[in-house]
Amino acid sequence: MAILPIDGGRYGTKEMLNIFNENQKIKYQLEVEGAVASAQAKLNLIPIDASKDILNIIRLGRITINQIKKLEVKNDHDTASLVEAISKKCKKNTRPWIHYGLTSNDLVDTSNSMQIRDALKIMEDRIYKLASILLAKAIKYKKLPAVGRTHGQHASIISFGLKFANWGIEMLKHLERLEESKKRILLCKTLGVVGTGSLMGSQAINVQKIVAKKLKLYSIDVATQIIPRERYSEYVFQLVLISSTLEKISIEIRNLQRTEISEMQEYFKSGQIGSSAIPIKKNPIKSERISSLVKLLRGHLLTSLENVSLWHERDLSNSANERFIIPTCTILVDEMLDIMIKIINNLIINKDKIVQNINLTKGRIFSEFIMQALIKKGVSRLIAYKTIQKISFSFYQDKIDYIKSLKKNKLISSNLTNKEINEIFIPENHLGSSITMIEKCNAMVKNAIIK
Amino acid sequence: MAILPIDGGRYGTKEMLNIFNENQKIKYQLEVEGAVASAQAKLNLIPIDASKDILNIIRLGRITINQIKKLEVKNDHDTASLVEAISKKCKKNTRPWIHYGLTSNDLVDTSNSMQIRDALKIMEDRIYKLASILLAKAIKYKKLPAVGRTHGQHASIISFGLKFANWGIEMLKHLERLEESKKRILLCKTLGVVGTGSLMGSQAINVQKIVAKKLKLYSIDVATQIIPRERYSEYVFQLVLISSTLEKISIEIRNLQRTEISEMQEYFKSGQIGSSAIPIKKNPIKSERISSLVKLLRGHLLTSLENVSLWHERDLSNSANERFIIPTCTILVDEMLDIMIKIINNLIINKDKIVQNINLTKGRIFSEFIMQALIKKGVSRLIAYKTIQKISFSFYQDKIDYIKSLKKNKLISSNLTNKEINEIFIPENHLGSSITMIEKCNAMVKNAIIK
Amino acid sequence: MAILPIDGGRYGTKEMLNIFNENQKIKYQLEVEGAVASAQAKLNLIPIDASKDILNIIRLGRITINQIKKLEVKNDHDTASLVEAISKKCKKNTRPWIHYGLTSNDLVDTSNSMQIRDALKIMEDRIYKLASILLAKAIKYKKLPAVGRTHGQHASIISFGLKFANWGIEMLKHLERLEESKKRILLCKTLGVVGTGSLMGSQAINVQKIVAKKLKLYSIDVATQIIPRERYSEYVFQLVLISSTLEKISIEIRNLQRTEISEMQEYFKSGQIGSSAIPIKKNPIKSERISSLVKLLRGHLLTSLENVSLWHERDLSNSANERFIIPTCTILVDEMLDIMIKIINNLIINKDKIVQNINLTKGRIFSEFIMQALIKKGVSRLIAYKTIQKISFSFYQDKIDYIKSLKKNKLISSNLTNKEINEIFIPENHLGSSITMIEKCNAMVKNAIIK
Amino acid sequence: MAILPIDGGRYGTKEMLNIFNENQKIKYQLEVEGAVASAQAKLNLIPIDASKDILNIIRLGRITINQIKKLEVKNDHDTASLVEAISKKCKKNTRPWIHYGLTSNDLVDTSNSMQIRDALKIMEDRIYKLASILLAKAIKYKKLPAVGRTHGQHASIISFGLKFANWGIEMLKHLERLEESKKRILLCKTLGVVGTGSLMGSQAINVQKIVAKKLKLYSIDVATQIIPRERYSEYVFQLVLISSTLEKISIEIRNLQRTEISEMQEYFKSGQIGSSAIPIKKNPIKSERISSLVKLLRGHLLTSLENVSLWHERDLSNSANERFIIPTCTILVDEMLDIMIKIINNLIINKDKIVQNINLTKGRIFSEFIMQALIKKGVSRLIAYKTIQKISFSFYQDKIDYIKSLKKNKLISSNLTNKEINEIFIPENHLGSSITMIEKCNAMVKNAIIK
Repeated sequence: MAILPIDGGRYGTKEMLNIFNENQKIKYQLEVEGAVASAQAKLNLIPIDASKDILNIIRLGRITINQIKKLEVKNDHDTASLVEAISKKCKKNTRPWIHYGLTSNDLVDTSNSMQIRDALKIMEDRIYKLASILLAKAIKYKKLPAVGRTHGQHASIISFGLKFANWGIEMLKHLERLEESKKRILLCKTLGVVGTGSLMGSQAINVQKIVAKKLKLYSIDVATQIIPRERYSEYVFQLVLISSTLEKISIEIRNLQRTEISEMQEYFKSGQIGSSAIPIKKNPIKSERISSLVKLLRGHLLTSLENVSLWHERDLSNSANERFIIPTCTILVDEMLDIMIKIINNLIINKDKIVQNINLTKGRIFSEFIMQALIKKGVSRLIAYKTIQKISFSFYQDKIDYIKSLKKNKLISSNLTNKEINEIFIPENHLGSSITMIEKCNAMVKNAIIK
Repeated sequence: MAILPIDGGRYGTKEMLNIFNENQKIKYQLEVEGAVASAQAKLNLIPIDASKDILNIIRLGRITINQIKKLEVKNDHDTASLVEAISKKCKKNTRPWIHYGLTSNDLVDTSNSMQIRDALKIMEDRIYKLASILLAKAIKYKKLPAVGRTHGQHASIISFGLKFANWGIEMLKHLERLEESKKRILLCKTLGVVGTGSLMGSQAINVQKIVAKKLKLYSIDVATQIIPRERYSEYVFQLVLISSTLEKISIEIRNLQRTEISEMQEYFKSGQIGSSAIPIKKNPIKSERISSLVKLLRGHLLTSLENVSLWHERDLSNSANERFIIPTCTILVDEMLDIMIKIINNLIINKDKIVQNINLTKGRIFSEFIMQALIKKGVSRLIAYKTIQKISFSFYQDKIDYIKSLKKNKLISSNLTNKEINEIFIPENHLGSSITMIEKCNAMVKNAIIK
Repeated sequence: MAILPIDGGRYGTKEMLNIFNENQKIKYQLEVEGAVASAQAKLNLIPIDASKDILNIIRLGRITINQIKKLEVKNDHDTASLVEAISKKCKKNTRPWIHYGLTSNDLVDTSNSMQIRDALKIMEDRIYKLASILLAKAIKYKKLPAVGRTHGQHASIISFGLKFANWGIEMLKHLERLEESKKRILLCKTLGVVGTGSLMGSQAINVQKIVAKKLKLYSIDVATQIIPRERYSEYVFQLVLISSTLEKISIEIRNLQRTEISEMQEYFKSGQIGSSAIPIKKNPIKSERISSLVKLLRGHLLTSLENVSLWHERDLSNSANERFIIPTCTILVDEMLDIMIKIINNLIINKDKIVQNINLTKGRIFSEFIMQALIKKGVSRLIAYKTIQKISFSFYQDKIDYIKSLKKNKLISSNLTNKEINEIFIPENHLGSSITMIEKCNAMVKNAIIK
Repeated sequence: MAILPIDGGRYGTKEMLNIFNENQKIKYQLEVEGAVASAQAKLNLIPIDASKDILNIIRLGRITINQIKKLEVKNDHDTASLVEAISKKCKKNTRPWIHYGLTSNDLVDTSNSMQIRDALKIMEDRIYKLASILLAKAIKYKKLPAVGRTHGQHASIISFGLKFANWGIEMLKHLERLEESKKRILLCKTLGVVGTGSLMGSQAINVQKIVAKKLKLYSIDVATQIIPRERYSEYVFQLVLISSTLEKISIEIRNLQRTEISEMQEYFKSGQIGSSAIPIKKNPIKSERISSLVKLLRGHLLTSLENVSLWHERDLSNSANERFIIPTCTILVDEMLDIMIKIINNLIINKDKIVQNINLTKGRIFSEFIMQALIKKGVSRLIAYKTIQKISFSFYQDKIDYIKSLKKNKLISSNLTNKEINEIFIPENHLGSSITMIEKCNAMVKNAIIK
């Protein structure tokens, strides 16, 4: 009976879960053992036969998680059990050379890097895909005027496409950051107990370089027993930051799906039950799920940051919590990206309502432009401001017609012709540089390359 | 293949895992359905036969998690599926009255309270036990002088028992807080979709009171769709605060087990492997595990606090993350308490080393008392301070004998006799009110009652 | 030129700022020195004349912050400088007995408690006031039906007063928690360097009891050099939790003030400028300020929790950050309470819009009640659900009349009369137990006593 | 009377405080107004005379913070007051063109970028300086063997220089990240109320490009009213991550300065008072201050992350808290860097104690190497492990001589000669690749360029 919703099957894509299950973890660690043995043989640190034997056992899949788990009961130590499991399968002469010069954490940290390496590939594809479909929406709606809101209040006119362009460019920045950080994060470390590589002498750093190349990782320049956790924090931060953008999108969708606003709507599966009590509900539950999970991830970032300061050449106080935060952050961000792609792909845009909402304040939303028109005619900013404010506020109390009131106002009518005033109230006139910017952003996404 | 270490069996006591598995969650929720039906029948809101039928189906265990999971695939809604599962088993006439007047979250939140109710019983016992064994140690070592350290530096003499008394009293305060908070946390809520209980009319609040009594919970005074998450934050905070005390203890043990200090040592299982590379290590890994997990929990508190501000009568953005944080916090704090009880019960105290450490600075640790003795003789605080500081510092550079240097100093020898000076260097003379306080604390723990 | 907005005068009530300025801090610490000297004289630990001299100097205000600051430049230690400042003003014979048996932190922590003691009085008054005006609003609007929203969607009918009742009761719970926690938080600690009170011998604990009584604090049972920071975390948590409720209220106001919803509106000062660019904006900036500050406070809670685990009898790693978090949390929560009282007192409630919003979905909001009516007539829950869902969803696409569609539906018309259907669409019929609950909550607030 | 310790003068370097005081903030904002007017004149959006007039007023310093503050009392809006202040000083014909097409936040965000731009220069210099002196220490101590500790236990031999190299390379990575992030962080945004630049039409984006170039910032590709707060989070994260490395160093120093370890010691000012009660204390208070402040900063990161999700084209809930976190994080990280440079520059290294500590376990620390020597001779890893473990543990109980015991052991003596055993106990033989790595790291720092 599952307890947490990742193992319970509620959250997580298949591809990503496959990277993080216990079995796969062991496979990664065996791959490290093999690569190290091979490198050590190449540099004459261990016999070539021992290296071949070890590689063979690993390739043939002769070591299983169950064997290791049984040994762990006795040893109370997971890596020691993995080494013992190999030892049991290999030739007698090979035994001395298993795990030669390594410490447990060489396996743990290097296999973590391998998981992250593979996880990044999956996530980068999703981020890029999301950026692309966001920009496609931006292009589609670039000429559609819509209400721009600040402080939850109607403020001015935007291009509806601008929302998508903003989100898409943020996704692009996430790709940029991930790419930049790989050299700091995807690290190979095989320098033994305290980072000197002492048992391999001056060759230690060369062994590590060969292993790193083989595993498509970077060889760390200097280490203690472990890869510094400042690097893990960078990784976790990147994930949390991605999830923060997803949160922003999800909250915008939830707000625009409000009954009173209804400009957007999440796709609703036929047969789906929105509420067990209320048959008419169409709730933005996928967006709400994203809004919920990001709060969990923010907490995990702190955990990760507290892991940076370990004592001396390392203490163990990062270990137990990393068993939670590394898989959870990765699996959930991937899940959230996957959900968001589906949400955006199937998003219902209600153009009628977008137009209606512009008119909701009966012209009030154009006040910025009236003010500016007056200013250009030489009216002082303050007087223009106060005049329009006064008309707007009284209009709200008296329900009189707003545009008429403006036209009736002496200051306004003496400065602006009716035609000039009417022009102001055409939303399409106020998109500014939106279209140029959206097209530029689209080109940026198109030109982005993921390695 | 498990992914997270709770489902993987690495962390969690059996008792606590039992409370949080999916199956048990369903049992709690069915219990709520039954209690509500029963209360509604009592108040003539639904037919007595319907109530009996519902209770029967539940008692006979006819609803299983698998049935519900299958329906969830279709419905995309867990509570709707639970209701449908009952519906399939009950008489036709009963169907209208299942889940009558309730909303999904009535089940979710009330069953959460039931889990917490049962979890608290287990944890309170452990906290009390831990407080007791800590005070037993305090009593045992109340007369043992030891080094008191501030800033990581030897500062003065303490009673070694004082460490345990401090920790024990903190555990007592945790019990006190938990007890006080129960009335705010263990809440029953059955007021439907938006907290009015509208479908049960004016009887809604009475239904809830009966249900609450039956389930040994408190009836909430007012609610939205949900129990306010400020209450959940209080619960999570209490757990995190307990874990913070455990962290404090674990860090003290780790520090006192340092090779250079060696005053305490965690029990080490015969056959255990301390390090895969270094055969001689005895690492405080249990304490380190506690130090690690607390960092995870601190992060969860934030998640919980961010859940307080839901929109209007509720939004769903608490839901997904609570599937993680409520079980994780409870299971891990319980686990940490369990580990700490074992650590303290088996703790090795190295008296020889405690005595040696007092002498490590060759008397320097008594300087506070020399200063005070001088002050009492009328020497100004500043002059006394500077004199002793000067002797202490030069002693460190010149390796000359400290007590002799003090006796040779004119200011000191003209104010204190040799006998007076010698008395100062007896550690047992400096326990102050320690013993009285320890005994008082022990009595406090003895007198504490857990309900 | 100020840098941070508390010292810059932007945030903070006068009363609260007065408690936390440097000068007042010194006054509290001098008060501790006086109370300790007086208690020590009473128990014959120091001469009565010395005690009188010290008390006199303090009473006459002869020690100023400037004197101390000057000495600190030389000493690099603030408490040592305070002691030296007294020393300079007192009689020669008094000097040995200043700060007798104390350590710096006895002053720091005990004066912290005094600040918190005084701060709590101010905040408790505000919390109670806020609870009272919230319940007054709840009573005023108890019979006003309004839209209840879940997931941002119209869900069902609530009593508008229920919103206020929920908030008011949360404030009451905050008062309850603060009261319960005082015995754990308002602590006096005068046990010297490592918590033994060694220089005062077995009398140390009695000195502390007398001082505690004098300062209206609780005498701590056991301590290290300091009051355990688990207690400070409890205090900070209480403040953060209060701010979380305030956040919830502020977000609700901001949401209900949205241009499209307009059920509530923050008071807008005549002459105020909403936006430098848009003359018609009335932004809920006070609520937004609260929403902003709470995010700062949540971060401070973590800082506080990380302070719990200090090394041994204390290390200094709590000190620098507490200079920020204790004043900031207290000053800002007080400020936020003050703002919220003003917001609620001047809140504009737009009843017309509340009524309009109920009708926005043209009846859809009553679907819960139609379903229940059908169920009561023997229609199965699932069929009722699906029937209503179908009509509701098609209605949204086809813009046909919702109530008419319901009446036309065979299943519905064969089970419910037109009169029965019409009754369902009267919002006042769906307040359930709201009024009873609101009145009960009001009585709870009325009966609450703040000590 | 100051309240918070930044305004109180306790923390903050002069250079950095200068960037963040209110006056300087206004200067930056005026610079933005000037640059915008100038760009607009260039693109014929406003008259060239107006632009000249505005620039003149700003250059002559005719606008003061006091003027603005007075206007703010009336307006309740800071930017509106700044605009009004310019308005009062300029020619009548200029007035329409002040702040033309801008919104308040264009000033706020762009001036934030300018502050960060200048702050980065200061901090990058310090980071580079710290990296350099750390690597200088690494080189100095590269051949000095020392105890490597894991789990707080003596584990193996390291090069003492390795500690410094690890820290230095982390500082280098911080520089690398900062450099990479500048293009995302140092942004200019002048696109008005909702990010369209509507009042400047299609020229809006060109105005921004010219302004950005002038202010040595990057022109943002797309925006809402504000620069996305995901960028601010990246900046705050970088600072927090820097502080985390500083925390790691500070904790290492505190641990190595422990009375029992004494390998390192913070410089102690002559005349300084370590403790008001204990004349002999030399406390690592500077390191402790760093350890304390980092906890504050971690909390601020969360605040920053919560600011990412603002509603629609922006809400104000980032504003109040950013008045705290942006200056505080920047000022304190700079302060911490400054302190750490002083600590490392004046660090006392106690070589004698480093040598003594290697011998503390009387050879036990070399056990890794004995095991490996046995393994190389064909002894199985497990047997070697258990043999050495047994001798090591019994030695600890029986106090017998460790090396003698090893030599007496049959398995060991039959596989290793006395000479071979003796070689193992020479610490210099176990530095592995340390020296190579340290030299490589030193070259990396030497080759690093800060722009």
